[in-house]
Amino acid sequence: MLTLTPLPGLPLVQTGDDLAGLIRAGLDRAGLTLQDGDILVIAQKIVSKAEGRLVRLADVTASEQALELAEITLKDARFVEVVLRESREVLRARPNTLIVEHRLGFVCANAGVDRSNVEAPPGEEVLLCLPADPDGACAALRSALGAAYGAAIGVIINDSHGRAWRMGTLGVAIGAAGVPALLDLRGKPDLFDHALQITQVGLADELAAAASIVMGQADEGRPVVHIRGVPYTLREGTAQELYRPKSLDLFR
Amino acid sequence: MLTLTPLPGLPLVQTGDDLAGLIRAGLDRAGLTLQDGDILVIAQKIVSKAEGRLVRLADVTASEQALELAEITLKDARFVEVVLRESREVLRARPNTLIVEHRLGFVCANAGVDRSNVEAPPGEEVLLCLPADPDGACAALRSALGAAYGAAIGVIINDSHGRAWRMGTLGVAIGAAGVPALLDLRGKPDLFDHALQITQVGLADELAAAASIVMGQADEGRPVVHIRGVPYTLREGTAQELYRPKSLDLFR
Repeated sequence: MLTLTPLPGLPLVQTGDDLAGLIRAGLDRAGLTLQDGDILVIAQKIVSKAEGRLVRLADVTASEQALELAEITLKDARFVEVVLRESREVLRARPNTLIVEHRLGFVCANAGVDRSNVEAPPGEEVLLCLPADPDGACAALRSALGAAYGAAIGVIINDSHGRAWRMGTLGVAIGAAGVPALLDLRGKPDLFDHALQITQVGLADELAAAASIVMGQADEGRPVVHIRGVPYTLREGTAQELYRPKSLDLFR
Repeated sequence: MLTLTPLPGLPLVQTGDDLAGLIRAGLDRAGLTLQDGDILVIAQKIVSKAEGRLVRLADVTASEQALELAEITLKDARFVEVVLRESREVLRARPNTLIVEHRLGFVCANAGVDRSNVEAPPGEEVLLCLPADPDGACAALRSALGAAYGAAIGVIINDSHGRAWRMGTLGVAIGAAGVPALLDLRGKPDLFDHALQITQVGLADELAAAASIVMGQADEGRPVVHIRGVPYTLREGTAQELYRPKSLDLFR
């Protein structure tokens, strides 16, 4: 049995907060400890907030390229400027849509830059960018929490992304540590001794999607989910495994 | 808490088998009954096998288009022919890769036609096509199992699909009944009373991905997963909600 438990009672996260400490307190409230093989999925927003990845819109000056893209996308040019600073390449720009390759290597809308769930003084707009190094943030939390409980655990940071051909967003992994992010089933025979046609499973994305079901979207109340019962052995692994190299991309 | 329980001891499914009966027996073995709000996720393969969606490769004659695509993709021309019969449109053909729009409306590789985990006499090759009408199959199972337990449940059929920009396959919904497949969060305010930027969540796909974690890939031993604790109210809904209309597709 696989169980997913959202940690109760986490406070709103502020710049500089100790996430490992907040998660330990949340585990205590849930009556949980960490055991070998457990995985924590953490919403991107609280990692970004703890890192202070905030940008005041009033402090941003739009570049020429941002002004042009803002006209096409009908978005605020300063918002577009922040998106461009977080991106390597623009894939599509249409009214209300701006799809980019994020500087970390994955494709998503608006480079994950968000203005919802960001507290700001009246009359001010504050944007939230994705964590600076999500794989590194996962590794640090894995190390701190693993040591605290004496357990070999995995950590994933998830975000909600749209898809090329399907409606609706899906929780996906933008950072991981200690998880077989891309699970290799190559050569494992099926029941009738054929070679399996499906070779690799995006396990960290499946875990990120599963956690998203119980996280909700509209608040920060359940941004950490504890998962127990994953039927695979943990190993070293990062979310980089999940990003399709440009050379293998047929749909850019 | 969300719990996912793979049903133990399901036999290999044959054409004409009564899936609702097999699932009831599996629930019994797991010590589970169905309650309001429970969701069953069923692997495409056992639905297809129960429907007898099998094609003997030796019975297939390749068309001109199949022969051409076989040369490009390095696939068996008769296999390609079966893929084309299940497809509306070819999106990409490359060595070892054939991406199509399936006749049901979603984009996937090989139209979901599979040769792994299909039992065949020695020297014969048998292909397995996706269920004829996955939404309809879900509705029938929802009705039969809901009546048997006196419960309002949801049913999803999942399959493993690749993604445009990410490595590895992911469990996705190719059929659904009684599930808010596309969960509408439009207008639900966030904690700070902004309108949410993210409007719609692919909930049935998140459930399909979550179930995939415990189903495994290489056998049929765990093709049905029981999910309890989904924090949303069930409603009428089919997997059609999840398929992006061609008019909204920026990456074809």
